[in-house]
Amino acid sequence: MKLSRLAEVTGSAIENGSPDLEITGAAGLDLAGEGDITFLANPKYTPQIAATRASAIFLGEGVAIDRKDIAVLRARDAYLAYTLALREFHPEQPVEAGIHPTAVIHKTAKVAESSRIDANVVIGHNCVIEERAHIHPNVTVYDGARVGENSVLHSGVSVRENCEVGRNCIIHNNSTIGSDGFGYAKDAEKRWVKIPQIGRVVLEDDVEIGANTAIDRASVGETRIKRGAKIDNLVQVGHSCTVDEDALICSQTGLAGSSVIGKRVILAGQVGIAGHLKVGDDAVLTAKSATSHDVEPGKVVSGIPGFDNREWLRSTAAFRRLGEIAQRLRAIEKKLGLK
Amino acid sequence: MKLSRLAEVTGSAIENGSPDLEITGAAGLDLAGEGDITFLANPKYTPQIAATRASAIFLGEGVAIDRKDIAVLRARDAYLAYTLALREFHPEQPVEAGIHPTAVIHKTAKVAESSRIDANVVIGHNCVIEERAHIHPNVTVYDGARVGENSVLHSGVSVRENCEVGRNCIIHNNSTIGSDGFGYAKDAEKRWVKIPQIGRVVLEDDVEIGANTAIDRASVGETRIKRGAKIDNLVQVGHSCTVDEDALICSQTGLAGSSVIGKRVILAGQVGIAGHLKVGDDAVLTAKSATSHDVEPGKVVSGIPGFDNREWLRSTAAFRRLGEIAQRLRAIEKKLGLK
Amino acid sequence: MKLSRLAEVTGSAIENGSPDLEITGAAGLDLAGEGDITFLANPKYTPQIAATRASAIFLGEGVAIDRKDIAVLRARDAYLAYTLALREFHPEQPVEAGIHPTAVIHKTAKVAESSRIDANVVIGHNCVIEERAHIHPNVTVYDGARVGENSVLHSGVSVRENCEVGRNCIIHNNSTIGSDGFGYAKDAEKRWVKIPQIGRVVLEDDVEIGANTAIDRASVGETRIKRGAKIDNLVQVGHSCTVDEDALICSQTGLAGSSVIGKRVILAGQVGIAGHLKVGDDAVLTAKSATSHDVEPGKVVSGIPGFDNREWLRSTAAFRRLGEIAQRLRAIEKKLGLK
Repeated sequence: MKLSRLAEVTGSAIENGSPDLEITGAAGLDLAGEGDITFLANPKYTPQIAATRASAIFLGEGVAIDRKDIAVLRARDAYLAYTLALREFHPEQPVEAGIHPTAVIHKTAKVAESSRIDANVVIGHNCVIEERAHIHPNVTVYDGARVGENSVLHSGVSVRENCEVGRNCIIHNNSTIGSDGFGYAKDAEKRWVKIPQIGRVVLEDDVEIGANTAIDRASVGETRIKRGAKIDNLVQVGHSCTVDEDALICSQTGLAGSSVIGKRVILAGQVGIAGHLKVGDDAVLTAKSATSHDVEPGKVVSGIPGFDNREWLRSTAAFRRLGEIAQRLRAIEKKLGLK
Repeated sequence: MKLSRLAEVTGSAIENGSPDLEITGAAGLDLAGEGDITFLANPKYTPQIAATRASAIFLGEGVAIDRKDIAVLRARDAYLAYTLALREFHPEQPVEAGIHPTAVIHKTAKVAESSRIDANVVIGHNCVIEERAHIHPNVTVYDGARVGENSVLHSGVSVRENCEVGRNCIIHNNSTIGSDGFGYAKDAEKRWVKIPQIGRVVLEDDVEIGANTAIDRASVGETRIKRGAKIDNLVQVGHSCTVDEDALICSQTGLAGSSVIGKRVILAGQVGIAGHLKVGDDAVLTAKSATSHDVEPGKVVSGIPGFDNREWLRSTAAFRRLGEIAQRLRAIEKKLGLK
Repeated sequence: MKLSRLAEVTGSAIENGSPDLEITGAAGLDLAGEGDITFLANPKYTPQIAATRASAIFLGEGVAIDRKDIAVLRARDAYLAYTLALREFHPEQPVEAGIHPTAVIHKTAKVAESSRIDANVVIGHNCVIEERAHIHPNVTVYDGARVGENSVLHSGVSVRENCEVGRNCIIHNNSTIGSDGFGYAKDAEKRWVKIPQIGRVVLEDDVEIGANTAIDRASVGETRIKRGAKIDNLVQVGHSCTVDEDALICSQTGLAGSSVIGKRVILAGQVGIAGHLKVGDDAVLTAKSATSHDVEPGKVVSGIPGFDNREWLRSTAAFRRLGEIAQRLRAIEKKLGLK
């Protein structure tokens, strides 16, 4: 692909280099080779510029490099431009339609002709599989479930009864959509009585779910993952939660039941969200933090339990010296005759 | 169902409303509609009483509401009564017996005629599947394993060699029962030598296991989950652990090897339990806490490492101001000429 | 097996007991019965010596016991000797070669005649399954993937496109090798644009992966788990990570993207490693700790964020009294007229 075409599809401008330069791939600074375009988004990686073998680079506004032998594409957002380039070099392959003869599809299910159903897939009563959906091998779709247009279910996925997967969704391997919520009442003998879990899970359009993630159905009503939300591997979403549009939930994070995660919220890795609370739009919880209270929109929260990130940084800095702090306190008390 | 019948099956008493009132479903305060019965168990939700559209409500002893247009059923435990009502409205469906022609069942396996074996299930040598058990699609039962009466294995579950699932158990999708414990010895070249894992896992009766959970077999002997214990999604149970009766283990909690979790213990989400220790009956570990020591019966423990919950609450309150505390200490030292 | 033979295969010396004593099994102190050999490696278990029913015991250098009725094998490392004994009593069974008629294998795949492919396995285009590999039921191997000699894939495993599993590897049930990395760029409307994940995962020889673990493919390049590394259940390995030889990663630990875990590193349970950093050879992170910075070789790190383990122990000891420390500080300030 010529540099000029790459500039066009990524919304960037040629600042150095010939418009006719042939670019054949995209990769990070360390992996890029001759013919590749790379990018610099994080100043931390500036030293790698000297050694990169890339032929071209995306740079954000105001960023300069001291190599003249590399073509420069100036972009508003170098990382986004690189992403668009990589997508251009690796376009999604169209799905080859067809139903494998070993697939077991109930006669009441409606499966679009343009969809692809792979070997050993099992699809239950009254399911709907829409246009160009791709169901990989060994997937189970329970009765009454629906998979939207262009969505991909990877091998080992289970979609439980009556759950709904929107359009353009991707669900990675061995994830579970719609397992029972974890709800019990205690009886007079202190034994657990299971609360029926008769609700469902709805994934709206453009949702991506990682591998080995579990999203529980509601007891009554819905667990809902809204348009554009992205959920990583090994995440737990408890029953009746709502994850709002474009939220990003990193690996091994867990949401207890009935919580609401706002728009564009970022929950970093291994975060914990207690039940029945609200994390406001654009809030961020840093890795390994937890909250048992509502979080205000836009807030950055850290710690267990979580509080303001900047105060947490101060507290953790002092925590490293806490043994010494306790000692100094004793010294003062001794001097003052307090102990 | 008439209100009078509902009172009977839930062990509650009509305090307001006609015994002949028709109740058609049960739901929480926010989701309940006309004809539904709801409940109030947590005073936090009292404000929702004003807006609920429910026709009837379960109230615990001594709880009053200021609406006269809602029928009231007085219960010892409103949450339990609601649970029993929901179970009445949504009784478990009897399993339709039968073996799907694509199931692969070894000729030495004994499969009860009243059980249901779905498509693409694989059952090994000498397995036993008891009366009315339901094995969903794409499940694998390894050689010598046993599944008890009325138990349900959801799609994607693996039950490994010689493991045993009791009666009335439910195992949700993609969980693993009986994977090898994580045990290695170091050789002279500092390489890991695998310790054979030849024990098994036993789930006793009435156990429920969530989705994508892993329960390891013992190296020698058993990992045992006792009667009535409930384990959520994405939980790790290490080799040779014992989880005692009616224990409740929430999502993403992990037990290292050989620990014993007492009766009715509650381990909240993302808790960690080190190896070779004992958590006494009725103890509680709050979310994200961890212990590397035994926990006394009845104790509530928080933190990493965990200690008494009330002290932990005091410590975490002070931790938020720890940067400031360090500053105040410096000010005192300065005043006293100590630094 | 005679005691003399057991001494030979475990590299230990008979110190007490007849060389002709028949030993029939191996087990821990508590589970061992007559005819078994046991071991004492951790002094904590010395009291169990009095009660054990074992007929023989492995003891390390300089360890004495006060029972004369038990044969003693003196070993450099009692735990390793016990492991070798257990392996001798429970040798791996040779795989019975064969392809189950329900397996779906693409005609372009190369499957060694000595391998075993179980029921309902699906193997894609151009895959290679080497000598004596054992693919358990309901496994999916995507196009272009390779499984090395003697490796075992347990039921429910997915190996994604172009990934490589080395020789003598074991992958436990429902694990995912090669799911997409979690990478998105934000567009001008603050929506997430998926970054193509076109790299792969390589597991080198002698790697063991637990159950329900997810290892993401690289966006470009490789995620690599090197020779002899052992990874437990429910672990997350992010895209482009490298886990070096003989590293040990315990359950529920998560690695964000592009981190490098050194040789023989031990990451205990529920540890978190941020992205783009390096944990030096032989370092240890204790359970539930996390690091967002590089860790020096050989260092033992604890806490969130992690720092030197001994200092952390001091800090956590003081943390338990932090409420009281704050109170004492107020008392001093009062005495000094500072507040």
